[in-house]
Amino acid sequence: MSKKNFPLSKAYRLLEPGPVLLVTTAHKGKANIMTQSWHTMMEFTPPLVGCVISGRNHSFEALVKTGECVLNIPAVELAKQVVKVGNCSGREVDKFRKFKLTPAPAAKVAPPLIAECYANLECKVVDRRMVNKYNFFVLEIVQAWIDPAQRNPRTLHHQGMGVFAVDGERIKLPSKMA
Amino acid sequence: MSKKNFPLSKAYRLLEPGPVLLVTTAHKGKANIMTQSWHTMMEFTPPLVGCVISGRNHSFEALVKTGECVLNIPAVELAKQVVKVGNCSGREVDKFRKFKLTPAPAAKVAPPLIAECYANLECKVVDRRMVNKYNFFVLEIVQAWIDPAQRNPRTLHHQGMGVFAVDGERIKLPSKMA
Repeated sequence: MSKKNFPLSKAYRLLEPGPVLLVTTAHKGKANIMTQSWHTMMEFTPPLVGCVISGRNHSFEALVKTGECVLNIPAVELAKQVVKVGNCSGREVDKFRKFKLTPAPAAKVAPPLIAECYANLECKVVDRRMVNKYNFFVLEIVQAWIDPAQRNPRTLHHQGMGVFAVDGERIKLPSKMA
Repeated sequence: MSKKNFPLSKAYRLLEPGPVLLVTTAHKGKANIMTQSWHTMMEFTPPLVGCVISGRNHSFEALVKTGECVLNIPAVELAKQVVKVGNCSGREVDKFRKFKLTPAPAAKVAPPLIAECYANLECKVVDRRMVNKYNFFVLEIVQAWIDPAQRNPRTLHHQGMGVFAVDGERIKLPSKMA
């Protein structure tokens, strides 16, 4: 895989826009994927992410048991797979095989990266106090990767019911924020 | 104001795509606004939202003291105000006056709606257990409004450093999700 190391201090720039994610987990020798949009940055350094993984998802048990996942960011070219991954369960389906997605080894966690995604964030669970009530996990990003071959990737933003806004024009306005 | 009531059960469709928000608070007779992108849906019913309001922001004290805010969603036409609101502090500036934004009374909370935003979500803080460590508030949306005059609003997604992706094309793919 031709992914390059991406600085952890800039990881927020990938997640803050609110893209749909493909979250990978691994448990008992099997990797799984779920589609996920309920996430937020919580801290810059170390980079922390909060995300909801519902107890109805097969991935929930894997995340609770192993404390590890990868947040993979797909560009619009993967839109059909994103929806199909979200419409079935890892209990019945090997989603990598069925949707022709390629697992690649991560550096610091057991779940695989999805090679086709333009960015991959390896994460470890660091706070579980809101898991019981909200299925809300606080993750620390411990390693980040970017695909230099995917320039100006356009991400997907889920508006519910299978409707997505795709990134259009990019604008830059003067900001004093560091 | 010509805003219409928006069903709480659909509020997630406004926030799940990850738009930049203008958050209003009110404290000691003064309303304030801040720009905010670190938020996530946490539950459909009742609609819960998690969001980070940093202790460095003037809005933090107001939210801690009053437990109320409004999440206002601006479309791209407000991009310049969004950045300017984010580049100054309510300690020194009356942001409604300075940036020509119009406060309108909310129905169930004290902070005002921003009339120019296409949607407004009135919120009350319902869980503070992650405030000390992460400045993370769990909010319940108690009333939602939409501006029927703003059709197909294109929202802003902050990529950091004043760079925003603006919603482009909208795609609909078959989803089994309810």
